[in-house]
Amino acid sequence: MDFAHSARSQELQRELTSFLDEAVYPSEAVFHQQEQANRAAGNPFTTPAVVAELKTQARERGLWNLFLPDERFGAGLSVLDYAPLAELSGRSISLAPEAMNCSAPDTGNMELLAMFGTEQQHADWLRPLLAGEIRSCFSMTEPDVASSDATNIATRITPVDGGYRINGRKWWSTGAMRPQCKVAILMGVSDPEADRHARHSMILVPLDSPGVRLHRSTTVFGYDDGAHGGHAEISFTDVEVPATNLLGAQGGGFAMAQARLGPGRIHHCMRVLGVAERALRLMVDRSLDRTAFGGPLARQGVVREWIAESRLAIEQARLLVLKAAWLIDNVGVRSAATEIAAIKVAAPRAASYVLDRAIQAHGGAGVSQDTPLAEMWAGLRTLHLADGPDEVHLRSVARVELARAR
Amino acid sequence: MDFAHSARSQELQRELTSFLDEAVYPSEAVFHQQEQANRAAGNPFTTPAVVAELKTQARERGLWNLFLPDERFGAGLSVLDYAPLAELSGRSISLAPEAMNCSAPDTGNMELLAMFGTEQQHADWLRPLLAGEIRSCFSMTEPDVASSDATNIATRITPVDGGYRINGRKWWSTGAMRPQCKVAILMGVSDPEADRHARHSMILVPLDSPGVRLHRSTTVFGYDDGAHGGHAEISFTDVEVPATNLLGAQGGGFAMAQARLGPGRIHHCMRVLGVAERALRLMVDRSLDRTAFGGPLARQGVVREWIAESRLAIEQARLLVLKAAWLIDNVGVRSAATEIAAIKVAAPRAASYVLDRAIQAHGGAGVSQDTPLAEMWAGLRTLHLADGPDEVHLRSVARVELARAR
Amino acid sequence: MDFAHSARSQELQRELTSFLDEAVYPSEAVFHQQEQANRAAGNPFTTPAVVAELKTQARERGLWNLFLPDERFGAGLSVLDYAPLAELSGRSISLAPEAMNCSAPDTGNMELLAMFGTEQQHADWLRPLLAGEIRSCFSMTEPDVASSDATNIATRITPVDGGYRINGRKWWSTGAMRPQCKVAILMGVSDPEADRHARHSMILVPLDSPGVRLHRSTTVFGYDDGAHGGHAEISFTDVEVPATNLLGAQGGGFAMAQARLGPGRIHHCMRVLGVAERALRLMVDRSLDRTAFGGPLARQGVVREWIAESRLAIEQARLLVLKAAWLIDNVGVRSAATEIAAIKVAAPRAASYVLDRAIQAHGGAGVSQDTPLAEMWAGLRTLHLADGPDEVHLRSVARVELARAR
Amino acid sequence: MDFAHSARSQELQRELTSFLDEAVYPSEAVFHQQEQANRAAGNPFTTPAVVAELKTQARERGLWNLFLPDERFGAGLSVLDYAPLAELSGRSISLAPEAMNCSAPDTGNMELLAMFGTEQQHADWLRPLLAGEIRSCFSMTEPDVASSDATNIATRITPVDGGYRINGRKWWSTGAMRPQCKVAILMGVSDPEADRHARHSMILVPLDSPGVRLHRSTTVFGYDDGAHGGHAEISFTDVEVPATNLLGAQGGGFAMAQARLGPGRIHHCMRVLGVAERALRLMVDRSLDRTAFGGPLARQGVVREWIAESRLAIEQARLLVLKAAWLIDNVGVRSAATEIAAIKVAAPRAASYVLDRAIQAHGGAGVSQDTPLAEMWAGLRTLHLADGPDEVHLRSVARVELARAR
Repeated sequence: MDFAHSARSQELQRELTSFLDEAVYPSEAVFHQQEQANRAAGNPFTTPAVVAELKTQARERGLWNLFLPDERFGAGLSVLDYAPLAELSGRSISLAPEAMNCSAPDTGNMELLAMFGTEQQHADWLRPLLAGEIRSCFSMTEPDVASSDATNIATRITPVDGGYRINGRKWWSTGAMRPQCKVAILMGVSDPEADRHARHSMILVPLDSPGVRLHRSTTVFGYDDGAHGGHAEISFTDVEVPATNLLGAQGGGFAMAQARLGPGRIHHCMRVLGVAERALRLMVDRSLDRTAFGGPLARQGVVREWIAESRLAIEQARLLVLKAAWLIDNVGVRSAATEIAAIKVAAPRAASYVLDRAIQAHGGAGVSQDTPLAEMWAGLRTLHLADGPDEVHLRSVARVELARAR
Repeated sequence: MDFAHSARSQELQRELTSFLDEAVYPSEAVFHQQEQANRAAGNPFTTPAVVAELKTQARERGLWNLFLPDERFGAGLSVLDYAPLAELSGRSISLAPEAMNCSAPDTGNMELLAMFGTEQQHADWLRPLLAGEIRSCFSMTEPDVASSDATNIATRITPVDGGYRINGRKWWSTGAMRPQCKVAILMGVSDPEADRHARHSMILVPLDSPGVRLHRSTTVFGYDDGAHGGHAEISFTDVEVPATNLLGAQGGGFAMAQARLGPGRIHHCMRVLGVAERALRLMVDRSLDRTAFGGPLARQGVVREWIAESRLAIEQARLLVLKAAWLIDNVGVRSAATEIAAIKVAAPRAASYVLDRAIQAHGGAGVSQDTPLAEMWAGLRTLHLADGPDEVHLRSVARVELARAR
Repeated sequence: MDFAHSARSQELQRELTSFLDEAVYPSEAVFHQQEQANRAAGNPFTTPAVVAELKTQARERGLWNLFLPDERFGAGLSVLDYAPLAELSGRSISLAPEAMNCSAPDTGNMELLAMFGTEQQHADWLRPLLAGEIRSCFSMTEPDVASSDATNIATRITPVDGGYRINGRKWWSTGAMRPQCKVAILMGVSDPEADRHARHSMILVPLDSPGVRLHRSTTVFGYDDGAHGGHAEISFTDVEVPATNLLGAQGGGFAMAQARLGPGRIHHCMRVLGVAERALRLMVDRSLDRTAFGGPLARQGVVREWIAESRLAIEQARLLVLKAAWLIDNVGVRSAATEIAAIKVAAPRAASYVLDRAIQAHGGAGVSQDTPLAEMWAGLRTLHLADGPDEVHLRSVARVELARAR
Repeated sequence: MDFAHSARSQELQRELTSFLDEAVYPSEAVFHQQEQANRAAGNPFTTPAVVAELKTQARERGLWNLFLPDERFGAGLSVLDYAPLAELSGRSISLAPEAMNCSAPDTGNMELLAMFGTEQQHADWLRPLLAGEIRSCFSMTEPDVASSDATNIATRITPVDGGYRINGRKWWSTGAMRPQCKVAILMGVSDPEADRHARHSMILVPLDSPGVRLHRSTTVFGYDDGAHGGHAEISFTDVEVPATNLLGAQGGGFAMAQARLGPGRIHHCMRVLGVAERALRLMVDRSLDRTAFGGPLARQGVVREWIAESRLAIEQARLLVLKAAWLIDNVGVRSAATEIAAIKVAAPRAASYVLDRAIQAHGGAGVSQDTPLAEMWAGLRTLHLADGPDEVHLRSVARVELARAR
């Protein structure tokens, strides 16, 4: 188990660090000003203009589509080589991943298209996505059922003459509220009589199809995530798409969802470590700068313990992420299932701890817009739920442990 | 130590329960619609109209100014008798406390005015506040220093001919962004050469005074709390007020702050228990209604444990709140200092646990606007910081414990 | 809910405090010396002689059988009045409860005999137990099945001519290894075909009956608890006892077990608070006395936090114990079932936290025989298992919560 | 950072696994029987005879002195290569490490002698230790001062004509109570006027020197660890040793202690992971075997969560141990100081969690002698204190973090 990164990855890490220092961090304030200006102008779901500039720069620096292991379309990095890059991008979680065309949910969608798409689908959707010209959403979760159990999905994809008819309601379709978002990869039941895991299909639904309606954006602890296109609740009423829009095989939806979520989860976990490092740095700086009761916060034993515990939590989570990455590279996603389940719990947990203590060390500034901490925390909180709640992943880990003993 | 509530308190509890069932809960959806409409109309800091209607009803039902133990002005209830009423109001934390004229920061301000105000101050400010005609803010915390240590306060209240001149910057002046807010009780340094705890004074500053400027509202996670007037950052530049605006004695600010925060903290803790009960009820209902993996969530051992641990946490915190209340009534705020410090940590902690697990049980709905959970959680998170961070209160508890042993 | 203690309880608290200060604490070292001498002499299961002396003194001081609410036999105190006395006795957990004839398992056995015993049983067993002349054990748990589920009990009590024949194996029969222990109250299956909760009976088995064999004593983290008679594993092979040895009604075992465990659990919880207070005091003293890194431990913020958190934990657990006691007194054991389940988890948890931190503050001394901390901790650890593991009690609490909502 | 183990390490792992399966696990019951027989015969500090047999076997299998990286004397394995071997030995913590001559405190002492000993010292002490013919103890901690701060050490090593005179009292001299223990490496103050970190020296003190007196053995919870020679409290009264007994340079004690504790700590952490794996396996087996409430424990969600959380904790701690090992091998002990401090906290914490939950899953058997869990837990508990309490290590981690930011 060798966690050494290739020379290319190291070179990209250096480049990305420069990009962050020279372009991204300085743009954070601009981003928030533009965001507020857009909102004030009645356009909450508009991406601040600075993002486009950063995308150009990232592309020029070769920091583009690094997530995609498929060399035909992307950087062709191993998962292990991508890990530190994703982590670095997490240090400016609102800007860097999107600037590098490496942000969810498009990354997962591009992976699906690369793996299962037809040439036509590549031309129509994957290429524009890879070029950063359009964006996409992933419509899986539904408001009326417990999404932790995927077999609960109720949306219907009914085969009709020459295509499919879609009826159902989805929410948490992240990114769909912005105009650049052109297509949804939707998961629904196509074969209700088939085996439990062969009932679902995935299908490409252009968002301008008749019958598609965006109702609203759900918020995350008060944040609408408008700059990234929000989280849309969408109804699909008798939406018809041609048969060529089917992604992969009919009935293959469940397997593709698993395939998509594996890398997606680990990408989340990598970025989350960057979020945690950013927060730890803010906590450390604050504790050196702020004075209370006759000395800097950093002199207080309790604050020092927060700092040390944060380091322990991050270190351990990172190593587990690297192990999972190494396993994916060397034995495959399927064989790394337990480790992926484990880090899906461990990494957000570690980061949530760091964030919470960093907020506490910042007092009122920690919960407000004056630091990125509160918004980063809110994003993290959803990771204990998104792509399966912690409890479902823990259950998977236990199942493996019990099976091994039987 | 008798935690029995008087017949009058019990009667008020029944009345309040009816009020919640008949008027408040049904108004919650209305409140949020009006809130969104106000925001859409460019008036984020406008209180939804339904609040005024509820205030009228609460007053008619005798559920008005219950917090004020001073019989000249308020209900004259003991702290113990008020506890279950405050808790009940916490079940609809956005509406009920304000509807009953029992919401922070006005409650603390009214207590200060009742205790330390002159007759003129009573006539000018206390009476309109008691009538619910105007609102007030409390300007203590400052953006540039650690507020956990009150001796850090830097705003100056300089005696000048016939009055005082005020210079400084305050933030987290909750409620100040709405037009009804007419006056700030401001704490600042009046006697910089005096003993550490005799340096500060409190003074009444009308918000329309020249030199007062509201800069912005700080957010709590993504919430601006606009319907309750937000959390203002205010600069005071050469603001002059007459000497009659001084509240209590010059140099008495620190003592008055302690006096104000004692009951304020316990009121927060009482309401917080209501927040927790509401969340527990939502979690229980959800776990009975939602189905995953072949049965309701309530059949899962892990969810049952959350429910049980929530009950344990709430029960224990409530008893400690009642003990602190009883002590305030029977031996005075000063003698209850340890217990007040203890519940200031214990009650928000208990409630935060319940809220977090309730959110987890709700999945995506838990973090969104579809349940009150996320917003309640955000409010709770600030209570681990407001009026002194947890660590400062724990330090106080330890100090007493160590002193007793010495 | 009035937690005030009667004048009599307060008088007894004063007397008990004197007894502890004057007689019990000074005897602790003697107790341990005698214990070691007994062990060195090959008599590990001999009670140190000092205990008998303390029993005489306790009796003279009127501190005898205080646990028994039945006025015919004991002090006739309410549960609430007994609570602070049991807590005080917990401060010297190895000596005081037994000195006062208020130690488990005899207390529970005496309650059972008082409630369900015949006059003959009172004369034969209850009177000598009340007089402290003999001791008894409770034989319920079995080594081969999960005792958390009482329906697992396998020992058979078969009706035969003129009596009952008993076959089975029990363990954790606390106290049975010492010669003074004369009788077991044994629970077994008498009516295997009856309803689940009507299958069991309780029966009095003299330990000198043919077929009774004491195999060994199980240890608790290395402690054999020899001075209190250890924890015996006992086999019962074709043991025959007369029908008059049946306690209560045939088939009534389950109900009697519930009746016995209710008060037993709360007594444990009361004593546990005394254990925690003792540990907190030791931690505070240590932190004032020990010097490291240039000052007393008490100056370290982390140690102060342990002290404060300990106070919070104890205070909240005590109030919950008092509430449960009050409920038992005023509405009955059955109606207090949830609160009893809750404190059975909460009180040992609070005490375990305090103990663990006190051990940490003591370094090597904390885990050794030089402080009572390690042995107290070990005793506490079993309370998370004995009379039902924490998880079973939490499940009960959740069940009530869910039932209320349905 | 490559965690791959060499072919030799892998071969040794296979051999050790066979040794455990074929010889060690089957000897555990024998060990405990002999231990009890020794105790019953009045020889509590006698090592059970089976250990000598296992030592012979281990030596024959080439599983001997694997811990020692110095090829002149030991296996010459890298720390990373030794890690999985130490972990495996931890699965039978009472037998395997000693059988392989890889148990504390002799390992640390042998390292010191190898690094700093003279040829005479190698001949007199190191060779017999390496041959497993004698054993040694390490006398550093003192009963009267806080050992967490090494500058507190009070024992004096006074230069006298031709040698040194030693006066002081030590405790927790593990292993010294058994007859095979022939020598102590003692740390004391030789140069009281020197700089803080140049005051101490280490010296070899034969335990049969006049003036050396073994007073007693301190217990760990109720365990005396007699089979491994207990934990001696030793007084040194005017003990004189020749100058050639000085280990390393006069005044070099502090530096040597650091050198000794680095590998010592990581060896503890490696073994601790084996302890945790053993406990997890026992918990898993128990949860599959035991039935309660109509099914195996393994069907209960709460138990499954314990199992999953245990796996997460072990995995993350192991990776951190491997990282620290890799760093020691590649950049040196000094540069790995933060990681060593971090795992000294993280590994025992992870293992303590697993142990505690395994105990809970076992009920009464868990706290008793019927499983190794309780004794393993007690050993682990001391690791939160030994070689510096957790708090001191966390403080070190924080210091580095703060220094980096400054």
